[in-house]
Amino acid sequence: MEKPENGKSKTGQPGIGQPGIGPRMRAIPDGDNRARLVCPDCGFIKYDNPLVVVGAVAAWEDRILLCRRAIAPRRGYWTLPAGYLELHETAADGARRETREEAGAEIEIDALLAVYNIPRISQIQLIYRARLRSPDIAPGEESEAVALYDWASIPWADIAFPSVHWALKDFQAVRGQRIFATRGNPPDAQALDSQTPDTHTDGL
Amino acid sequence: MEKPENGKSKTGQPGIGQPGIGPRMRAIPDGDNRARLVCPDCGFIKYDNPLVVVGAVAAWEDRILLCRRAIAPRRGYWTLPAGYLELHETAADGARRETREEAGAEIEIDALLAVYNIPRISQIQLIYRARLRSPDIAPGEESEAVALYDWASIPWADIAFPSVHWALKDFQAVRGQRIFATRGNPPDAQALDSQTPDTHTDGL
Repeated sequence: MEKPENGKSKTGQPGIGQPGIGPRMRAIPDGDNRARLVCPDCGFIKYDNPLVVVGAVAAWEDRILLCRRAIAPRRGYWTLPAGYLELHETAADGARRETREEAGAEIEIDALLAVYNIPRISQIQLIYRARLRSPDIAPGEESEAVALYDWASIPWADIAFPSVHWALKDFQAVRGQRIFATRGNPPDAQALDSQTPDTHTDGL
Repeated sequence: MEKPENGKSKTGQPGIGQPGIGPRMRAIPDGDNRARLVCPDCGFIKYDNPLVVVGAVAAWEDRILLCRRAIAPRRGYWTLPAGYLELHETAADGARRETREEAGAEIEIDALLAVYNIPRISQIQLIYRARLRSPDIAPGEESEAVALYDWASIPWADIAFPSVHWALKDFQAVRGQRIFATRGNPPDAQALDSQTPDTHTDGL
């Protein structure tokens, strides 16, 4: 689910989500040691924290589920089912929910494939290895299309984000391994990341 | 670092951190599908998200570093060096920072030991396995004491949180294993968690 942003969404409820509102002034609250965003109108302190993205590399037999994005950023490019973890949700439940929402598919999670750090945008990604319970898939609201790709057919040139590349390659690297060390950013992650500075700004 | 809470901290800056301010009304913003907290004064939408806790089971030879909490909750009980991941920080950097802040110690991270889910309080914990670079440790502001415990001496009755139990046991379970599957909540996690309903409310 994409979330409307403060100051960007249009709303019927006056005052909600309008520009120039809410925490927008930097100050160090008493007892803290870092500047935080505070609202000069009401005094609310906003603690910005890293966000958790959860997702899955889900396969039916040898083919991997990909979703073509119907939304910005990287509309029209292929990604894994993934999105922001919600409150009171486990990471595995979140990965299952995102796969259901974006690809109409049910998965069985097998292992934690990878934990990726994208500190530039304060994101931690938890990506699971999973099996599709059936080959029945259907695009959800945020997908233009969904498809099962075998390894040789993956549309590498049209992959939405560097971390989708990483997850696909990590999935392949541990294919057939029942026990493996959860993967992390590849050694060249910084290079990859800096080549595509704006692709991660809105999550997967 | 403990963060002052809105409505709980005393501050010299008028209006900042006072009770009854900021997002406190539930409404579903346009384009969203969940109720979010909004501020009836200024209209700001607050997206509450799960928080990431990072920490380490760090050993010097066979002994494990523990910290006795100088702060609520569970003051006087033993915990691992751990705390909230900050913006623009990798999880490993966060674990190293917390160990430095709480135990005055430098660590070398070896592997991602465990990922724990505590959905009741919307927390994801990333706990690393690490080696201390030296046995020189010293309590930071949030610790009353720090100590190195061998396995037989761990003060099980005085451990602060269930997830500290889990991490210590997971550390022991994979001791000597170079490659292992990152651990998760134990099967009896729910039972443990419900026995101690309030211990996790403020993080590790």
